[in-house]
Amino acid sequence: MRKLHLHYRMRFAVLVFASVATMTTFGLDNGLMRTPPMGWLAWERYRCDIDCKNDPKNCISEKLFIDMADRLFEDGWKELGYVYVNIDDCWSSMERDKDGRLQPDPNRFPGGIQRLARYMHDRGLKLGIYGDMGTHTCGGYPGTTLDKIEIDAQTFADWEVDMFKFDGCYSNAIEQELGYPLMSKALNATGRPIGYSCSWPAYQGGLPPKVNYTQLGQICNLWRNYGDIQDSWNSVLSIVDWFFENQDVLAPAAGPGRWNDPDMLVIGDFGLSMEQSRFQMALWAIMAAPLFMSNDLRTISSGAQSILQNKMIISINQDPLGIPGRRILKEKVGIEVFWRTLSNNASALVFFSRRTDMPYRYKTSLSKLNYTTGSYKFTDVYTGKTDVLKDSTEFVVSVNPTGVVMWYVSAPGKLKYHPFIRGGKRHEPAYDAEENTFPRVFL
Amino acid sequence: MRKLHLHYRMRFAVLVFASVATMTTFGLDNGLMRTPPMGWLAWERYRCDIDCKNDPKNCISEKLFIDMADRLFEDGWKELGYVYVNIDDCWSSMERDKDGRLQPDPNRFPGGIQRLARYMHDRGLKLGIYGDMGTHTCGGYPGTTLDKIEIDAQTFADWEVDMFKFDGCYSNAIEQELGYPLMSKALNATGRPIGYSCSWPAYQGGLPPKVNYTQLGQICNLWRNYGDIQDSWNSVLSIVDWFFENQDVLAPAAGPGRWNDPDMLVIGDFGLSMEQSRFQMALWAIMAAPLFMSNDLRTISSGAQSILQNKMIISINQDPLGIPGRRILKEKVGIEVFWRTLSNNASALVFFSRRTDMPYRYKTSLSKLNYTTGSYKFTDVYTGKTDVLKDSTEFVVSVNPTGVVMWYVSAPGKLKYHPFIRGGKRHEPAYDAEENTFPRVFL
Repeated sequence: MRKLHLHYRMRFAVLVFASVATMTTFGLDNGLMRTPPMGWLAWERYRCDIDCKNDPKNCISEKLFIDMADRLFEDGWKELGYVYVNIDDCWSSMERDKDGRLQPDPNRFPGGIQRLARYMHDRGLKLGIYGDMGTHTCGGYPGTTLDKIEIDAQTFADWEVDMFKFDGCYSNAIEQELGYPLMSKALNATGRPIGYSCSWPAYQGGLPPKVNYTQLGQICNLWRNYGDIQDSWNSVLSIVDWFFENQDVLAPAAGPGRWNDPDMLVIGDFGLSMEQSRFQMALWAIMAAPLFMSNDLRTISSGAQSILQNKMIISINQDPLGIPGRRILKEKVGIEVFWRTLSNNASALVFFSRRTDMPYRYKTSLSKLNYTTGSYKFTDVYTGKTDVLKDSTEFVVSVNPTGVVMWYVSAPGKLKYHPFIRGGKRHEPAYDAEENTFPRVFL
Repeated sequence: MRKLHLHYRMRFAVLVFASVATMTTFGLDNGLMRTPPMGWLAWERYRCDIDCKNDPKNCISEKLFIDMADRLFEDGWKELGYVYVNIDDCWSSMERDKDGRLQPDPNRFPGGIQRLARYMHDRGLKLGIYGDMGTHTCGGYPGTTLDKIEIDAQTFADWEVDMFKFDGCYSNAIEQELGYPLMSKALNATGRPIGYSCSWPAYQGGLPPKVNYTQLGQICNLWRNYGDIQDSWNSVLSIVDWFFENQDVLAPAAGPGRWNDPDMLVIGDFGLSMEQSRFQMALWAIMAAPLFMSNDLRTISSGAQSILQNKMIISINQDPLGIPGRRILKEKVGIEVFWRTLSNNASALVFFSRRTDMPYRYKTSLSKLNYTTGSYKFTDVYTGKTDVLKDSTEFVVSVNPTGVVMWYVSAPGKLKYHPFIRGGKRHEPAYDAEENTFPRVFL
């Protein structure tokens, strides 16, 4: 026992040295997730429910993931891009196997993870799995300490897993600083393209100087910046508020292959009204956020499904430029305006009402929203209504309480400015704060 | 002008004297609202929208009330008991007429209030109107100062109005203490039965010693105890929390003809999920609360409509005993249980989950909920599922986040105790706090 322990310590020292030596040339560079990943993730809706005896339909088991895969495959989700079926915490056995490898709980995953991955691949889907940089996962299952990073990465690759979420419970800042880059390298070293989701920044407050978004963009495909989402409007709104209060830091961090992750979509669950569901979908599109649903696709309402399957919003979310949008206006009456630049000189606008009384008739014009002179075609992404507006024409949008109006706007010519215009290099956005200062009401 | 003013002052003095002299024999005693009133009220959804030019469908105008009356009449609401169509603030002209009477805004109510009342009566509906004890209504329209109480009561009676909500903006505690009883007397004196809704306690914090619920039960048919509801889950939950934190004071105050009013139903609006809508309907039934919807019956979703039209919940709300229920359990895991005694030895149970993660499987038994030995038939009021349970049988209810499971329970025999058993007198509930102490977990 002691001997084993010493052996591990030695390996740990070697790994630390290696990581420091190669830090500057690290890079996930796996070519994955050039647009935000889309799919389904178990956590928010199913948590650590392992009671398959009393709750067989909802417990964390291969049956749950097969059920969701079947729904993604059969109900039109896959064609829209929802291809990841992601396992979260509580999938593993409480013990590693005799070779030190993680193994799934034998009762809940009798077929094993590899067979589950093949089930996904046979249907054009992908499988994601979960681990934790630390002694234990958040749910108390075996964690991945620094000495286990290589073996775990290889195990996931052997299982033909396509994505890996690396949580950060039960580790300190130094271990995380070593572990997250090491795992990136270890995943790359397997030769299998595995999308890499890092919870690291969420454990370090999500902001510089503790968080280095340049480095994250080099080692992770997506990262959780902030706390876990819950099935409530308060939670969804607090996440959006945090992201846009910190948009000057966060928006430039994202781009093709590297995304901020405000956490799962809770649309189709219990806590959001239809208006609030439309809000989450709209804002996740503005943020260029990963779209991982956490809901029950077997029983989802048609209303929730139609929001999640809205093609125009998905195409805004998946815009190939991958430039996150910004909040450009905060009116005292509780109206906020969000804007995202899109390819083909187009843009997206979201009008949001924070009010809790009645629909607010918000009067503005495109020129007040800093659009240049010209005529613009716009489409209301939720109603499908299309119209043409001159930049100077005053118009009224009626915005429901805790709801949004979202437009896809085709620009006639060049926009006045392009925030976050990037140079040729992938990881060095030429973000110019000066250039993006709205003359009037920029936030 | 000065002369008129003096004249009013003299009348004021006479009224004050009269009120003090007859205080003890006051009583609304109008025979109305032996079960909680049901209908529709404009405020929460339409506020003080008077912009009929730009928002003709939603502005406070006779058209709005006629539209809602048509929906109540044609869409099955009236048969279920939703008969009141109630005007709130912002209906009147900014000036009284030459005889000192309130008058409706001529542009928005060109047909006048009496014609509107007759429109209701022709369809088996009733019309409610709004005034304010004070110099101005909350929206800034003419208020009813003490000297105007009699003329206003008579005006409403002349118009054949069926209900009157008396708000309390722009008056102090002394004026309210005089005005609310005076209005009760004045309404009675008209000879027309007019349901009387008093906002008085809400302006005085809703609790003794500032609020005298015995007196309120003698002069008002219903009263607002607490702040205005908003179209949000936070608002609905904070109201419920306040009412049940103060249930020892509030539950005994209500009974046939005199009701606590936790404010309007916001089901069918923008802020509540379906689960949360089921919660509001269930808790309003437990509280024996007036059921005034404030929504757009022209466009309401079928989901919201079916909650509001649930016959079993309405019958629980309208139980002829009129004994409000209580919160009997608060579990640390976020589950709460509410219970209301009903006629025919039946009862209602509500299991609520405050959680925001996933459905909670709550295990209990009827005996743990203080039911006596025996077998009970229960019906889930939302699913219609019926079953029989022995008091000792352990069962599991799966309660969704921010949702409820609500049961109508038919008792086999006598309940262990009857809270709030009353003597023969209407206004003297023989509430015995001792008797109602739950041995285990009573709140």
